[in-house]
Amino acid sequence: MIISLIGWKGGISKTTSAICLATLLARQGKTLLIDSDPNRSASLWARKGKLPFTTCTDNEAARELMSGGYQHTVIDTPARPGPDDVVAIARGADLLILPTTPDPLALSALVQLTQELPEGANYRCLVTISPPSPQTDGAEAIQALKRHGLPVFERAIRRRKEYIHAANEGRTVRGIAWHDWEAVWRELNDGKVG
Amino acid sequence: MIISLIGWKGGISKTTSAICLATLLARQGKTLLIDSDPNRSASLWARKGKLPFTTCTDNEAARELMSGGYQHTVIDTPARPGPDDVVAIARGADLLILPTTPDPLALSALVQLTQELPEGANYRCLVTISPPSPQTDGAEAIQALKRHGLPVFERAIRRRKEYIHAANEGRTVRGIAWHDWEAVWRELNDGKVG
Repeated sequence: MIISLIGWKGGISKTTSAICLATLLARQGKTLLIDSDPNRSASLWARKGKLPFTTCTDNEAARELMSGGYQHTVIDTPARPGPDDVVAIARGADLLILPTTPDPLALSALVQLTQELPEGANYRCLVTISPPSPQTDGAEAIQALKRHGLPVFERAIRRRKEYIHAANEGRTVRGIAWHDWEAVWRELNDGKVG
Repeated sequence: MIISLIGWKGGISKTTSAICLATLLARQGKTLLIDSDPNRSASLWARKGKLPFTTCTDNEAARELMSGGYQHTVIDTPARPGPDDVVAIARGADLLILPTTPDPLALSALVQLTQELPEGANYRCLVTISPPSPQTDGAEAIQALKRHGLPVFERAIRRRKEYIHAANEGRTVRGIAWHDWEAVWRELNDGKVG
């Protein structure tokens, strides 16, 4: 299973999503996270060696994959891919996840990005950095995406300080923040990811 | 076996070298050429499906490698990699080949690039687009690189129209041009490539 995270804007939780999805997949089998983003944020998060999967840059991915034995790969792609890259990224993955924050600019960039995807691409939008209740930005964003006819996770990923702590400490996400990812995982397993 | 082509300048025959090296390796086992150069020149060369190896972009490489069975990989890396990329590219390959044309600017860029390589990197310089006899630019460039203490192929790759024809027709290189690559192959097999 290859999951690619893709987005036009920065700051939409692309790397955090890659880390959390790789953590989920690693429970099922040997997992590689390929850090293709020139920011190298995923590599920074992974540097302490505490994550339950291997992380390497795109430059080292061939060696890692040829060493064999990987069942799952998560790819953190560079922000703002060109149209040809979008098509190739879609071809190179079993599932694309398109994170977006629940603000109009990010949602608009997301809708544009979906228009670049090749026909038949298997993708799902994921609302991230959703502000805490009683604010309803996350739920409204999900409804807006549905009105556009886009496939979207029912669960929004909430804004939590835990992500900053986890990244600083180089570990997986815990607590209430992690509950959101367990919910995402259940939606994936109810759907196309088997 | 993973061979990466790396260079700071454009126009040094990096892609042509990747195509020819993949052709040589494909005689030994299933070979993948990963086109990581945003120019996508290798993909263009390969588009007619006449080459004896598979070519894909970096975006599709994980899927291709996870499908399994590749014995050899050649990576055509983007020109002008940053210092961190040079180190990661070196880590990700068994052998780096650094093509250079025999002119002072290209040679100077090459020497600079070798200074960015991590200690112990397995690399060899390759003089390309060497003008025809009686011009001695190729031989002089090889001597200059040796004086710098750099490992370099004894054979320079000569400038030939055949490369243009082969690229246009999407096929492997033939004739006298190909003799140079057979010589490079012999040097590789006399050395570290087994």
